[in-house]
Amino acid sequence: MKKKNVVAFQGERGAFSELAAVQLLGAGLEFLPCERFEQMFRALQDGAANAAVVPIENTLHGSVHENYDHLLNFDHRIVAETSVRIVHNLIVPPGTKFSALKQVYSHPVALNQCLRFFAAHPKLEKKTFYDTAGSVKMMMAERPPGAAAIASSLAAANYGGEILKASIEDDRKNYTRFFLLRRPDFPLPKRSAASKVSLVFTTRNSPGSLFRALAALALRDISLVKIESRPMRGRPWEYLFYLDFLGHVDDPNVKHALAHLGEVSDLIRVLGCYPAAGGES
Amino acid sequence: MKKKNVVAFQGERGAFSELAAVQLLGAGLEFLPCERFEQMFRALQDGAANAAVVPIENTLHGSVHENYDHLLNFDHRIVAETSVRIVHNLIVPPGTKFSALKQVYSHPVALNQCLRFFAAHPKLEKKTFYDTAGSVKMMMAERPPGAAAIASSLAAANYGGEILKASIEDDRKNYTRFFLLRRPDFPLPKRSAASKVSLVFTTRNSPGSLFRALAALALRDISLVKIESRPMRGRPWEYLFYLDFLGHVDDPNVKHALAHLGEVSDLIRVLGCYPAAGGES
Repeated sequence: MKKKNVVAFQGERGAFSELAAVQLLGAGLEFLPCERFEQMFRALQDGAANAAVVPIENTLHGSVHENYDHLLNFDHRIVAETSVRIVHNLIVPPGTKFSALKQVYSHPVALNQCLRFFAAHPKLEKKTFYDTAGSVKMMMAERPPGAAAIASSLAAANYGGEILKASIEDDRKNYTRFFLLRRPDFPLPKRSAASKVSLVFTTRNSPGSLFRALAALALRDISLVKIESRPMRGRPWEYLFYLDFLGHVDDPNVKHALAHLGEVSDLIRVLGCYPAAGGES
Repeated sequence: MKKKNVVAFQGERGAFSELAAVQLLGAGLEFLPCERFEQMFRALQDGAANAAVVPIENTLHGSVHENYDHLLNFDHRIVAETSVRIVHNLIVPPGTKFSALKQVYSHPVALNQCLRFFAAHPKLEKKTFYDTAGSVKMMMAERPPGAAAIASSLAAANYGGEILKASIEDDRKNYTRFFLLRRPDFPLPKRSAASKVSLVFTTRNSPGSLFRALAALALRDISLVKIESRPMRGRPWEYLFYLDFLGHVDDPNVKHALAHLGEVSDLIRVLGCYPAAGGES
């Protein structure tokens, strides 16, 4: 019998991470929801899952440093990326009228991203919950009177909720970028023409050290698409850099660039080479 | 009569932002707590406050892009920085015994940063609340039986709570960096020897464009302390960079570097020049 492909993600069923998994891999997947990020990396290591979908940065909230740390501490390759627009929907038990609503449950970050909606409807009370999708699950199971929840359309579909108002978020430029990690037995998603490489490197913080490191790429006409410094606590003058560039690790020009970068940095770790998800991601 | 100095911050009284204000400016301040970040920038513009304390990055969660946007959209100068270690305390009404506790209220991010504590005390139920300090305020006002809250020591002091267990956070490397903004009538904090400059610039994303921009600093032996790229949505091939370096805007070497950087970038905005808060910040 063929072994099932299991995709680990953090959150409840219907979380934005599950939406990213569907975007990357299509429908018909088996999922392993995890409470914490580290659990998905462990699940992948132990074989409890053979793929994982990992949020890595958000256009409003920046990079998820914890997941960069797990990418360094575990040894799973990035094989794909995608961006999910964070669309918040007002979800109710089917047939509920808007006029009957009194309380709206969700994660406080999601509630705070819908402040214009709450300002327009001052009779609705914000009720905090540990998870966006979890608030839909609770609402459908316990049916508190007058309750709605804010979550993804997938959470509405998963728990049988009805979307009463779609896209009530204040900011439409709220996107989360996800990486797909996999074990060798998980089928690779289809490839696109352009490739991207993600890596981490460290340098001593002497003036010009980053400039010298970037020469490895600039002198070979390689395009950067992300750079971010992260001070290393306890070692105040050392920096870790996150770097993404366009190119493929099998391209000789990229091989030379990585060798050159290795010469001028203390540590270099390629986290993966994967199809680039288009200019807007 | 001398006008009072009023410091705006986001959150309830006792929030980590208030702790940052005390660290930067000492005790005896008057505060203006704001619900949203944008409100503090407006309060500073309108004169309702004459200083504001703004979280700009966290060692676990990355840069607060929203506040970089407000720094660009408003015209307030950064005049100081500080780093606050995020210490979570278990706070109860005075005299409460640990054995009597059933539920612990806090913001879900704080609850998730104390998972080891909850694993060691499985009978304690996590209850989400919109704010860490707000959970102490509610607990002291409403006294739900068996309730504790997780928040800063300042929140305990402000609302008369007792710290039953100090520092229950999983990760001691959780720091938030704050900027102090001020109106001209607010007294400047005392200066230190080393200075730092924060700026934002944009370049077209051609190969080597960042390399050419960094030459402006590297060729003048100026030390970078932060660099971060942020893709500009809707303009997929344009990038905004956040950059901090050591130096003073009045130093001729720095003036030349800024002029040179201005030549090779489409936009450059110095957000402030302020005393550097030491290597570990």
